[in-house]
Amino acid sequence: MTTKDSDAIRELMDASAAAVRSRDVDAMMSHFAPDVLSFDVVGPLHFVGLEAVRKRAEAWFGSFDGPIGYQIRDLNIITGGDVAFCHSLNQVQATKTDGAKLEMWWRATLCFRCIAGKWTITHQHNSVPFDAESGQASLGLQP
Amino acid sequence: MTTKDSDAIRELMDASAAAVRSRDVDAMMSHFAPDVLSFDVVGPLHFVGLEAVRKRAEAWFGSFDGPIGYQIRDLNIITGGDVAFCHSLNQVQATKTDGAKLEMWWRATLCFRCIAGKWTITHQHNSVPFDAESGQASLGLQP
Repeated sequence: MTTKDSDAIRELMDASAAAVRSRDVDAMMSHFAPDVLSFDVVGPLHFVGLEAVRKRAEAWFGSFDGPIGYQIRDLNIITGGDVAFCHSLNQVQATKTDGAKLEMWWRATLCFRCIAGKWTITHQHNSVPFDAESGQASLGLQP
Repeated sequence: MTTKDSDAIRELMDASAAAVRSRDVDAMMSHFAPDVLSFDVVGPLHFVGLEAVRKRAEAWFGSFDGPIGYQIRDLNIITGGDVAFCHSLNQVQATKTDGAKLEMWWRATLCFRCIAGKWTITHQHNSVPFDAESGQASLGLQP
């Protein structure tokens, strides 16, 4: 693991977070591989490819009115050769288009390959756990 | 990425699946790092360390009567140097202790480091998505 690779991925994460806060779908998508496989907090089971991930991001941004607050916590980055992964707890704070306030933490895992000298997300997994008794997603958990 | 590393992780996955089917917690735990961080299908947000992951596995096995059917589908393994990750769709088919039949697909991401020559799971992320309208976990999805 080199500090240089780790720093490059940390910069990517900062840029990606800034893209979310400014609702910049193009900037957000610039970090993903064309054949990215995404497991997201809401269904379906998976989103395959850049276009599917972009549509999902557009729908997510479109579900909010006004600014999107976004933070990444407990970020841990592991790199080796041209492969890397990281995990974190992420939070969004925003107002939905129906006026409801949303404050939600979820778990995030990102997997990377260094392709033509550029660290690129080839797989992401975002989720919240559910409660086994009620079957409800646990949307109010705090780290 | 070498075929040798990829093969070693595939063998680990096969052994791990066999451990689930035979309810062998020790065999299952032998693939995890002491400081593993696990995001699981049910709460809390995360399980930190081998003991927490073991307790969760014991509770999971204990929630079933009789044999546990388990399959791993669409397994994709990426290795580079001493770091690797894989993702798949996994299914359990079993009878719960209350008599209810469970057939559930979930998304699985495993992240590995090669430590002292042995591929070891340092992070895992298992989840199902939820339905944004109802807030219910989507437990009946098919790949």
